[in-house]
Amino acid sequence: MEDWVVGIDLGATKIALGLIDTQNRIIARQRVPTAPLDGPDAAVARMAQAIDALKSALPAGMRLTGVGICSPGPLDHRTGMLLDPPNLTGWVNVPLRQMLADRLGLPVTLEHDAKAAALGEYHYGAGRGERDMIYIVVGTGVGSALILDGKVHRGRNNSAGEVGHITIRSEGELCSCGNVGCVESFSAGPAIARTYRRALAATGAPGQAESIEAITTEIIVERARGGEMLAVQVLADAGEALGTAVATLAMILDVELYVIGSSVAKAGDLLLEPARRAVAHHAHRSVAARVRIVRSELEDDGPILGCGWLARQRS
Amino acid sequence: MEDWVVGIDLGATKIALGLIDTQNRIIARQRVPTAPLDGPDAAVARMAQAIDALKSALPAGMRLTGVGICSPGPLDHRTGMLLDPPNLTGWVNVPLRQMLADRLGLPVTLEHDAKAAALGEYHYGAGRGERDMIYIVVGTGVGSALILDGKVHRGRNNSAGEVGHITIRSEGELCSCGNVGCVESFSAGPAIARTYRRALAATGAPGQAESIEAITTEIIVERARGGEMLAVQVLADAGEALGTAVATLAMILDVELYVIGSSVAKAGDLLLEPARRAVAHHAHRSVAARVRIVRSELEDDGPILGCGWLARQRS
Repeated sequence: MEDWVVGIDLGATKIALGLIDTQNRIIARQRVPTAPLDGPDAAVARMAQAIDALKSALPAGMRLTGVGICSPGPLDHRTGMLLDPPNLTGWVNVPLRQMLADRLGLPVTLEHDAKAAALGEYHYGAGRGERDMIYIVVGTGVGSALILDGKVHRGRNNSAGEVGHITIRSEGELCSCGNVGCVESFSAGPAIARTYRRALAATGAPGQAESIEAITTEIIVERARGGEMLAVQVLADAGEALGTAVATLAMILDVELYVIGSSVAKAGDLLLEPARRAVAHHAHRSVAARVRIVRSELEDDGPILGCGWLARQRS
Repeated sequence: MEDWVVGIDLGATKIALGLIDTQNRIIARQRVPTAPLDGPDAAVARMAQAIDALKSALPAGMRLTGVGICSPGPLDHRTGMLLDPPNLTGWVNVPLRQMLADRLGLPVTLEHDAKAAALGEYHYGAGRGERDMIYIVVGTGVGSALILDGKVHRGRNNSAGEVGHITIRSEGELCSCGNVGCVESFSAGPAIARTYRRALAATGAPGQAESIEAITTEIIVERARGGEMLAVQVLADAGEALGTAVATLAMILDVELYVIGSSVAKAGDLLLEPARRAVAHHAHRSVAARVRIVRSELEDDGPILGCGWLARQRS
């Protein structure tokens, strides 16, 4: 096995690339801007340049045999087309897989970013050795990828895993989807920041409106680590909603392992302990006893390694 | 193909048996009491007698090659054991499959009743020609069986499909499981009867407490058909909760077809129209547009025909 692959995590602002060896380690890295407004051709050119740079890290006797790329959805993994990802303005019906393959002269696979991250965790991270695993992204939004019996469950129209928009409560803020009571409206980063800022504005000194608006989820997590009660409580509320969703998934699918990734997951047990308590509260006891909620092990490397795994399936 | 099979639906009060021909039609039927307190040996003897009677309906040249039986859970379909079904008092760790096979000298399969009903609908009823289907039982309780890619999804511990106990609201009656906001606490038969009786007691003439207590879900459905507003409203509330659960299933699994069976399903569109409206309200528009909620086609024959299908897989 002298076949190395490249995994590419295409995000709204940056593109992270990794050269992956036969032991599934990332040996060299590149990072280039996405600059979506420049259009997909320019981005593909930047990716090709970055891959040229990665190739220089290939030891003698090794060759690059495939590339996997993941991107925000919606996309069609079968045709390799981006449809109209809201985070990549103007990239409508882009045949990204073909564009990259033509440019590189290599086989390319395209996958949804949450699914690639899930595959990375499943094969090389927190899901190693498991049969089933659900990967839940808790960041700007809340989404998930379901791995059942070793395979990604895509659903009839490739839209499975929308756990951010299941209804778990009767009340709450209006969600971006127009519904009330969605998991995302309680657990996503913007919901956490909004709840915290509002509580602070209600209790804090006047005239601080501007600085309050600058408080990010990251800052809230820091403050909670420092023991600030309001920050702890706000993260606990987000975790409670996340755990209610996990209870729903566990009751419906009887899956035991839930791996939580993306920015809000960095809160760690400040988020996950309340989530575990919520599972114990909302799921049957025999089901709750088997549920494990853990943080992503691979974090930002998950999508790259998942793309590498996909590239190996093809090449 | 001259192989005929028998399907057996073992319930808490009665056992329904059907002789099934090679076209998957029920050609002859038997019904015997379960009488669970007499113990499983007596019930197996009654089943064997009933199967002898069914054999007399076998045309010349046809032979009985297998038996499928379904029962309330929990059970282990792999070992053919009933574990401790709450509806079959005293039947703890009963090797039902082996007992029947020994008695009959035929291969026997044992399956959970909701899963057998789902397989019946999937192969011979409302699910014919579909890839995925979710069968939801709305009766004394609310449960489901998930058929994904043509196969029953059982989950890690064979407990998948517990849709009756997912949390969809913040408030409501305490559910039998100890949680609040469960689908079952809004949509099951006892919940419908309780809500209706309470509303009637609150608004009705005094001194009617006794007759109010005798009102069953069946009577409520009749009254709703007759246009009684309270009955219509109570069924619509149950349907709204059912539809919220369907929205959750559709968002998570991207399954399009939901087949609703058991006693409360007999309310038909009085229950299902509000459920469809709830899906439109709670699921993303693109998802809701593809969801179909229909009544079971086979009704009480579903479990028998599903057991027949299972018997054919083995024999």
